Amino acid sequence: MALKVYVDRMSQPSRAVLIFCKVNGIDYEEILVDISKHKHVAPEYKAINPMCQVPTVVVDGKFKLFESHAILIYICCAFPGVASHWYPSDPFQRSKIHSVLDWHHSNLRQSAGVLVWNTILAPRHGLPLKHPLVAEESEKLLVRSLSKLEDFWLKDGQFLVVSSQPSIADIRLVCEIMQLELLSEKDYDRILKPYKKVVQWIEDTRRATAPHFDEVHGILFKVQKRLRKRMATEPVNYNHLKSKL
Amino acid sequence: MALKVYVDRMSQPSRAVLIFCKVNGIDYEEILVDISKHKHVAPEYKAINPMCQVPTVVVDGKFKLFESHAILIYICCAFPGVASHWYPSDPFQRSKIHSVLDWHHSNLRQSAGVLVWNTILAPRHGLPLKHPLVAEESEKLLVRSLSKLEDFWLKDGQFLVVSSQPSIADIRLVCEIMQLELLSEKDYDRILKPYKKVVQWIEDTRRATAPHFDEVHGILFKVQKRLRKRMATEPVNYNHLKSKL
Repeated sequence: MALKVYVDRMSQPSRAVLIFCKVNGIDYEEILVDISKHKHVAPEYKAINPMCQVPTVVVDGKFKLFESHAILIYICCAFPGVASHWYPSDPFQRSKIHSVLDWHHSNLRQSAGVLVWNTILAPRHGLPLKHPLVAEESEKLLVRSLSKLEDFWLKDGQFLVVSSQPSIADIRLVCEIMQLELLSEKDYDRILKPYKKVVQWIEDTRRATAPHFDEVHGILFKVQKRLRKRMATEPVNYNHLKSKL
Repeated sequence: MALKVYVDRMSQPSRAVLIFCKVNGIDYEEILVDISKHKHVAPEYKAINPMCQVPTVVVDGKFKLFESHAILIYICCAFPGVASHWYPSDPFQRSKIHSVLDWHHSNLRQSAGVLVWNTILAPRHGLPLKHPLVAEESEKLLVRSLSKLEDFWLKDGQFLVVSSQPSIADIRLVCEIMQLELLSEKDYDRILKPYKKVVQWIEDTRRATAPHFDEVHGILFKVQKRLRKRMATEPVNYNHLKSKL
């Protein structure tokens, strides 16, 4: 089966799909859709994914699929040799994986990336920010989401569903949280450090998917270094931005 | 298998699960979690669903599951006799169902209900509104979502994935759009009428799930009647609300 994976490694769901493929020895071709160069809205990519988002996979040149959760589930089912803990066939465990992935859509997904975009990436790129309230609301939702991870989803074990082994949900949600690495060290620590189980779970997922986790996140850490260096010399005055809006 | 379904029929995902169970002759007990009376945040419900949302199902008094998409998939797999078109075993069709359900989370789900809440329900209930921009943004997202339904998801057939028969995705997405019935007739027509295929698809899904679709939506139409009667005599002055915020 020929698998083409259209991604931008600066996108959290793209990273999740890449790490998963690498960990499971899936043979694929990685094709960069450079969002910073607006390649995701180019007509040739629109023909592959009319939603203009990454990732997308194309199987045998014919079957096109987008949405990272759907892609991860598809690969688990279509490619032989994927260990069962990634997407267990037990109906209760499988349902829990669907449940946590669905929960993720309206919680972490609506908060971590939105916060990073509206406080760090957009102002740094000179792009228009949404109303400052969006950043405030997304931080509130992020804190509520982290609390639910700490007190509910991670209460029974090391990982989200299959207590001692990672599933596709662990990779996907941890990749989302990793976007917070682009915040200043102070903000990152302030937001994330109170959640001990979450911090440990990120580390456990990283170890369980080594060395691919760090390799795929390489570009994120490169951008982090550049951003934090700039933050040290020319800090973003968020109040100043507010008055502009 | 004893199935308890915790719902409030004013909630779109609750209605989707109820209609699906009724159409498929699933034996279940419906338990009202009255959101208007804050029963969803009561300790006894929190013990069932710590996210304080409806719907939730409890199977044989033990297995608790929330998130409507996960619930619909679980019922398709765990209950014998559910026709295959609802959640086909064909890997491509099944993946497309996951894809459209995932897409729904960040598009229709983030727009239709949010718009109705911020323009109709919250002011009518004297509850605090989010910033007026939230309503404006949600209408923009709703229009984009309806366009994608019209031009992409419904381009090949009568229904979303299995072209001639409904799947769980049709029930779920149509139930979300049905919340727009609470808008004024003028706003409803203005927003929805340009999308001919969408309007036809709502009607086709309604017919395919008759008489349960109308029965489960009964409370929505009752509230619509009351709201529209009030709108005629005391229209909501949204600009006035804006100045308060």
